[in-house]
Amino acid sequence: MIERKRVIIDTDTAGDDTIAILTALHYFQVEGIMITGGNVQFEQQVENALYTIQVSGKSGQVPVYKGHERPLMGLGEKQHRTVEDVHGKDGMGDSFFEKAVQSPAEGHAVDFLIETVHKYPGEVHILAIAPLTNIAMALKKDPTIVSQIPHLYIMGGTNNALGNITPSAEYNFWVDPEAAKIVLHSGIPITMVGWEMCTQYSVMDDKDHKDIEELETKGAKFFKEVNKVVMKFNKEVHKLNGTTHPDTLLAAVAANEEIMTKSNLYHVDVETVGELTRGYSLVDINNRLERSKNVRVCEKVDRNAFKDILLDVLRSIQ
Amino acid sequence: MIERKRVIIDTDTAGDDTIAILTALHYFQVEGIMITGGNVQFEQQVENALYTIQVSGKSGQVPVYKGHERPLMGLGEKQHRTVEDVHGKDGMGDSFFEKAVQSPAEGHAVDFLIETVHKYPGEVHILAIAPLTNIAMALKKDPTIVSQIPHLYIMGGTNNALGNITPSAEYNFWVDPEAAKIVLHSGIPITMVGWEMCTQYSVMDDKDHKDIEELETKGAKFFKEVNKVVMKFNKEVHKLNGTTHPDTLLAAVAANEEIMTKSNLYHVDVETVGELTRGYSLVDINNRLERSKNVRVCEKVDRNAFKDILLDVLRSIQ
Amino acid sequence: MIERKRVIIDTDTAGDDTIAILTALHYFQVEGIMITGGNVQFEQQVENALYTIQVSGKSGQVPVYKGHERPLMGLGEKQHRTVEDVHGKDGMGDSFFEKAVQSPAEGHAVDFLIETVHKYPGEVHILAIAPLTNIAMALKKDPTIVSQIPHLYIMGGTNNALGNITPSAEYNFWVDPEAAKIVLHSGIPITMVGWEMCTQYSVMDDKDHKDIEELETKGAKFFKEVNKVVMKFNKEVHKLNGTTHPDTLLAAVAANEEIMTKSNLYHVDVETVGELTRGYSLVDINNRLERSKNVRVCEKVDRNAFKDILLDVLRSIQ
Amino acid sequence: MIERKRVIIDTDTAGDDTIAILTALHYFQVEGIMITGGNVQFEQQVENALYTIQVSGKSGQVPVYKGHERPLMGLGEKQHRTVEDVHGKDGMGDSFFEKAVQSPAEGHAVDFLIETVHKYPGEVHILAIAPLTNIAMALKKDPTIVSQIPHLYIMGGTNNALGNITPSAEYNFWVDPEAAKIVLHSGIPITMVGWEMCTQYSVMDDKDHKDIEELETKGAKFFKEVNKVVMKFNKEVHKLNGTTHPDTLLAAVAANEEIMTKSNLYHVDVETVGELTRGYSLVDINNRLERSKNVRVCEKVDRNAFKDILLDVLRSIQ
Repeated sequence: MIERKRVIIDTDTAGDDTIAILTALHYFQVEGIMITGGNVQFEQQVENALYTIQVSGKSGQVPVYKGHERPLMGLGEKQHRTVEDVHGKDGMGDSFFEKAVQSPAEGHAVDFLIETVHKYPGEVHILAIAPLTNIAMALKKDPTIVSQIPHLYIMGGTNNALGNITPSAEYNFWVDPEAAKIVLHSGIPITMVGWEMCTQYSVMDDKDHKDIEELETKGAKFFKEVNKVVMKFNKEVHKLNGTTHPDTLLAAVAANEEIMTKSNLYHVDVETVGELTRGYSLVDINNRLERSKNVRVCEKVDRNAFKDILLDVLRSIQ
Repeated sequence: MIERKRVIIDTDTAGDDTIAILTALHYFQVEGIMITGGNVQFEQQVENALYTIQVSGKSGQVPVYKGHERPLMGLGEKQHRTVEDVHGKDGMGDSFFEKAVQSPAEGHAVDFLIETVHKYPGEVHILAIAPLTNIAMALKKDPTIVSQIPHLYIMGGTNNALGNITPSAEYNFWVDPEAAKIVLHSGIPITMVGWEMCTQYSVMDDKDHKDIEELETKGAKFFKEVNKVVMKFNKEVHKLNGTTHPDTLLAAVAANEEIMTKSNLYHVDVETVGELTRGYSLVDINNRLERSKNVRVCEKVDRNAFKDILLDVLRSIQ
Repeated sequence: MIERKRVIIDTDTAGDDTIAILTALHYFQVEGIMITGGNVQFEQQVENALYTIQVSGKSGQVPVYKGHERPLMGLGEKQHRTVEDVHGKDGMGDSFFEKAVQSPAEGHAVDFLIETVHKYPGEVHILAIAPLTNIAMALKKDPTIVSQIPHLYIMGGTNNALGNITPSAEYNFWVDPEAAKIVLHSGIPITMVGWEMCTQYSVMDDKDHKDIEELETKGAKFFKEVNKVVMKFNKEVHKLNGTTHPDTLLAAVAANEEIMTKSNLYHVDVETVGELTRGYSLVDINNRLERSKNVRVCEKVDRNAFKDILLDVLRSIQ
Repeated sequence: MIERKRVIIDTDTAGDDTIAILTALHYFQVEGIMITGGNVQFEQQVENALYTIQVSGKSGQVPVYKGHERPLMGLGEKQHRTVEDVHGKDGMGDSFFEKAVQSPAEGHAVDFLIETVHKYPGEVHILAIAPLTNIAMALKKDPTIVSQIPHLYIMGGTNNALGNITPSAEYNFWVDPEAAKIVLHSGIPITMVGWEMCTQYSVMDDKDHKDIEELETKGAKFFKEVNKVVMKFNKEVHKLNGTTHPDTLLAAVAANEEIMTKSNLYHVDVETVGELTRGYSLVDINNRLERSKNVRVCEKVDRNAFKDILLDVLRSIQ
């Protein structure tokens, strides 16, 4: 039997984060889940992560650590903004699930990350599907972990394309661009899956939802519920006819890199200063700036392969 | 006979600017040409515009006015940069044409613009295919012209896409973002054709160049010569297999708006402050910012119709 | 008889601008007065300048040119702000004087400046007691005037001290920092008199006002009237017990440089980008940045000598 | 016997930090010393703190915790800069003292701070004489400590005056303005002693140094040695005839607030974005911004009282 890779997930659990967690639990040895401030109220996010573990049938087997409730900066006009309009009041499609049986673990997410990386040097991959606050703070607190993290998968930014929270920025980078900057320049090997990869290759339309429904599993039912609000939101705001799965796409890419049918190493950076562009991710595709190439950027995905992974995960949760 | 629309062209004449001028001379009553600092050395740009008029056979019929040699700001790191690597040392594909017979007109471009707009109130359209310095300065000097300009066509920016001079910015907006900001917020009705419209719909490949060569006109020969350097540059830097025609595309859109097969009114703004994003153009396609819609943005072009226009122009120059 | 120096005054005429104009009219050959947007409504400023000339008894002898009504940038949060709270609704201490007999001159201030400098090359000094919009625009329109202007005296900025319109910025630099930046880096020899020179050396207290009143001239009476509102404002906001005379101090320094008892050549620049510091003037007193020294900065003034000049001017206006 | 107040010192130990530590050890119950990146190489700073405790005769009684070696941001042009030119290669006036007997404590400074504050809720005052990285990171990691810290004394910034590392910024705020911003807006009661308080009230000239020398104590001798380099630096760069003691002044103010003969509660903020003003501290003395008053700002000091404190400290170290 092949040993499964160790991962730690950093998540602001709401909506698609849950399916990404299910995907990671399916394919990886998940050492723990860290919660960072983002999508909805912090304690709700913690609860959503705990409930998702319960849905997977692994209650009590995967610890959930609370991390930073707020981005690094974020005063005045830069005040943190949650997005219940996207994911529902509970971040779970207004499903208002029952309280999970598992409780959060003691200790701070940042310390959990540092300790786990040192416990298994060179073995712990990170799946980052939230603002990068926790990860940045861990790197600042203990820079020696940099050389011990084999790979960091980030859902965040865009490849110089239309954002979602503003025209210039994707939500995770926009919430904490300073953290994103710290992480992108850390030296850790990084794969980045941007927002437009999600809109181009991960949208599940009515036909896809029908296929999922026909699985008739607990996983399929859960998928349907948590996606209720985002389906409407996407139609109204992004003119997208379906649900979006940026976090699940990231987890799927980490699980099977071959579904990325195009990717390249580029210089990537994030704007922290702009009046209109806070959180904008720059991907220097044509090497105009001649700076060091720090991020492997996902540029194309095999959409069918992604869907297969998603269905496999949902099928497995009985 | 239908009277032709009056236009003034603002250009940093090099490479594709020349073909745009020929296109405008073909379809419009060109009241004058203004030169603004941009692509190559200023006096060379003036000479390039004069020579282009000569190629069109209209020497002496269209005045060329010198305007601002430098962008508004542009000190230290923001120092102006010319791009002879794109267009050749002379901005004409290293063709080093003979000196034009026509001389520049007396007076400053800004005053010419103001006077002409007041002379023909409501009649003078502007084709802007350069940094927006001259136009911004005219609006600041005499804000009353705003209500007298029926339409301003701008080649500049991107629709939140990869830039050319930097990953985040297109050259014309990047050279003078302050001027771009002044113009975008002026209240003049604007159509904007961004850089990726050019890379998507205006690239002329080897087959197209063969079609042009077969015209066997003076226009076709001129086209070939001025495009010598950019062909190589595009292959190396932008991985584009052909020549790019942003300015000609803009002139063609102004001449026949129907070749824009998709366009919408959006809020458009430009970043002046960002560390990585100076000159970035924001197009609020999903109306995330809920600000006033100030620019009609070109989103799709009928590529064949554009090529027909280009060939018509080059065919007509015997 | 010694010929008087030629000067052009650039002013947003309100309050102390008027006394500065009277001072300049007393000591210089004033070629003209240019109005730039600043303190109060633009047309009111024009009227205030015309009326001031009338008070001096020189109606019709000194042309007043309208210039830029608004700063270069100034959109959204950077919108221009007038300060009727400082100077009164009419900018004249709520005196609501009768309409002046003289009318503004035809033509734009910027063109007047350019033409006059070329008419008297090397002779025309400039007294700038307003936002630097007009002067910056003239330099951009015709950079050849730079070498023809012997000296530019600027009332603006601070020597790294507390501002007036914000804690970090003095009003003139704050209104148009981009213009200030253009001017400071132009290469023209500059003397700068900052805001705290005014609060330290030009405050006229009750005793001083009594001395002025006892002159019993038209000038003294006018002085009293235009200073009615600012007296109250200074007590409430700046905790200053008296009236402030930044513009008159600038004119006095230009008329007699010896009243500057300390001045040095420093590198001076202005912040255009800061979130809290837009318009902040940096004076590199300890040469920490090792950049070129572009401005002679006034650091101390002989307060009594200044008062003597002020009284001489007011005494002379019968 | 009156119980002494508990304090934690956060320091980038070099030069005057050492005398501030001696002062704090004299007047307070020092729970621990935290080291943050700043003046000189990090490990050298740790060693300097340990050696200073040894000089005080308290080796082994006060733990020294390592904290953040680098500011939060600090990439590219914002790269961290140490200042051996001010303090000597070893930060101790090029004294190259022997290695201290005490070793640093286990654990991270941030955790030590959080734990100690919770151990003595409402009792632990903080003396911050370094960039505010450690303190900001502690507040972000555990925001509940805010309400448990009775007072934070900060040496940093200026009261809108000339800086030291740049014309616009004081070193501690300039090294980590993001951290300073987090701390200033935290809600903790703060007293700030800015750089120009130090240059106005804490300079020790030749006469003062003679008085100190005559103490003939170990403390006096140590004082002389660590101040060798800064004496020269101050003459050359700041034109100050003596040594500067910003950190000791801060510790003295904390020990006896009555030596502050003028102080007021103002709105204070720090610029993080400016091109020329990164690290600039804004003190809204005239309440122009009408924002909440978050910091008590030291505006005048009884210089003799400060000198008395300094001499008492140095006298006591036999």
